[in-house]
Amino acid sequence: MNRSRRHCDFGWRCALAATVLLLWGVLAPPARAQADPLPSWNEGAAKRAITAFVAAVTADGTPDYVPREERIAVFDNDGTLWPEQPIYVQLAFALDRVHDLAPQHPEWRQQQPFEAVLEGDMKTLAAVDEKGAVDLVMATHTGMTVSAFAGIVKAWFATARHPRFKRPYQSLAYQPMTELLAYLRASGFKTYIVSGGGIDFMRPVAEAMYGIPPEQVIGSSVRTVFTLVDGRPALVRDPAVDFVDDNAGKPVAIERFIGRRPLAAFGNSDGDLEMLQWTTGGAGRRLALLVHHTDGEREYAYDRDSATGRLDKALDMAQAEGWVIVDMKADWKSVFTSEPAASGSTVPNRERR
Amino acid sequence: MNRSRRHCDFGWRCALAATVLLLWGVLAPPARAQADPLPSWNEGAAKRAITAFVAAVTADGTPDYVPREERIAVFDNDGTLWPEQPIYVQLAFALDRVHDLAPQHPEWRQQQPFEAVLEGDMKTLAAVDEKGAVDLVMATHTGMTVSAFAGIVKAWFATARHPRFKRPYQSLAYQPMTELLAYLRASGFKTYIVSGGGIDFMRPVAEAMYGIPPEQVIGSSVRTVFTLVDGRPALVRDPAVDFVDDNAGKPVAIERFIGRRPLAAFGNSDGDLEMLQWTTGGAGRRLALLVHHTDGEREYAYDRDSATGRLDKALDMAQAEGWVIVDMKADWKSVFTSEPAASGSTVPNRERR
Repeated sequence: MNRSRRHCDFGWRCALAATVLLLWGVLAPPARAQADPLPSWNEGAAKRAITAFVAAVTADGTPDYVPREERIAVFDNDGTLWPEQPIYVQLAFALDRVHDLAPQHPEWRQQQPFEAVLEGDMKTLAAVDEKGAVDLVMATHTGMTVSAFAGIVKAWFATARHPRFKRPYQSLAYQPMTELLAYLRASGFKTYIVSGGGIDFMRPVAEAMYGIPPEQVIGSSVRTVFTLVDGRPALVRDPAVDFVDDNAGKPVAIERFIGRRPLAAFGNSDGDLEMLQWTTGGAGRRLALLVHHTDGEREYAYDRDSATGRLDKALDMAQAEGWVIVDMKADWKSVFTSEPAASGSTVPNRERR
Repeated sequence: MNRSRRHCDFGWRCALAATVLLLWGVLAPPARAQADPLPSWNEGAAKRAITAFVAAVTADGTPDYVPREERIAVFDNDGTLWPEQPIYVQLAFALDRVHDLAPQHPEWRQQQPFEAVLEGDMKTLAAVDEKGAVDLVMATHTGMTVSAFAGIVKAWFATARHPRFKRPYQSLAYQPMTELLAYLRASGFKTYIVSGGGIDFMRPVAEAMYGIPPEQVIGSSVRTVFTLVDGRPALVRDPAVDFVDDNAGKPVAIERFIGRRPLAAFGNSDGDLEMLQWTTGGAGRRLALLVHHTDGEREYAYDRDSATGRLDKALDMAQAEGWVIVDMKADWKSVFTSEPAASGSTVPNRERR
């Protein structure tokens, strides 16, 4: 029980140690003024709401105080932490995989939606029904071990670039959001991704991009089966949907994985509505925030009519409930993390820092 | 970038600070000799294997070294961290719930397996088929919100006692295993429960008993549905199996929840076999351990023929593969954490500490 206590065995040692500590306290340089934790956020209602919330729930001895272990923050990924336009990053991956795998699948030349992918027929692709979308995911995301798939994902990220920004996807984390993640973690929060995207597609890059380890990434999944291959254990990805982590699936997954109701939730589309409702439905002070894509120049401008990342019902709900709505154009000083090495091509939205 | 650096602004301050630190180094009491991290373990092969493994994977600069973030340890619960005899703790809970709910279910008097429960007919109960077992779980574990169920579980644990030891179940964590959990955590491991038991049955007590927070408890689950009750969001437990976290389900759940292959796995029955195979199948040094219940006096003695916690195939595999087999009678100095307050009744296995 007493293992962690340190006793002073000799009086003179204690006296000297006390003197030393006292001198150190007097002579050490004064602490610097608290640096702005959100330098890429313009001053305004959104930034104030975030810092006021964090100050409140971390103020020990006040009614809003929440113990460290219960400080859970959940973030959607597509459109909240990185772009989802012109198409989801994971869809870009799937399309590239179709091209890569096409030589082994001559039948795809006469089979939708593969035919449309191979011919670059985006109009047909955009109209693909749910079965077609599932076929596309299964053909490109399953039939290998989990470690083989992680390798495929990493290899793709190493070379793929965003079609407009001409930068690696891994350099397209929203700078204000990575600051927010770091700020919350520095304030004792555990940060999670809770995304409709594939859990095994995000995990290989989430730690480097967002500082979020694999065990704090929650997403949609395919069925995975344990099997022995030549007597060696393997986990193989089967062509079947296991869980869709979107809409009402998000609070369900939060409960299943975390087992605590979040204090704060961050999203950008109708797919995040139930997660924000679940978060704000808890007792005590909560924070719900929507990123509203209003910046067609630096990023994209879309909401109620967008096929990707539609923000309609959740926008109405946010206005009615007083959730924080981030106006990307007005609230964000910069959008993307600056890229360490220029890629040679024009980078229309390179931020000045 | 330089925010974390502290500069000495004045020469005399630096000089004084350096002197102070030097004196402190010379005068501070010498560090105590490393205390035994596993005092309830007798010296022997099992204890040596554990400490040698931990020393190896934490020795920076050696081939066996593993970075802190990849140090994942997974523990079965029933029979590994607490007793599973004479019946699973969760089954005791279910039986008590049947008695509690019986007044609202007069039909149970003529319906198996409820009739057997109400009449205390353990022979019929022991022969219940899978459908009967599922009926029992669904009738007692579903139909309420997740928070209501957590309340029911906590209330049960507050009063229920083990039939033989006459102590609250929460006081029946195996002392050597809680020491092992603490030792691994102190060595940079993240510790998880991966149990066939219900995830929502374990979470309300796992933090207090084992120091394991809800987000590190993985188990079997029932289907949970998000819904609005009077406009307020709720998660309701539905009478359907969602996932069975046993046998081949364990490595699948480990991948789904954690996304990393464990370095160390601890179990006690055939239900843990695949988890131990998956763990030891990874590259580099790994640890697999089975608790063998050999102590009928202080706890229970059972293995190949037991209906609860059968240890047969996994015992053969452990012997063939050289996994660590803990002989509870020989390897454990004490079995249970000593209870802070005596419960008045005889406690046959109260440990001397």
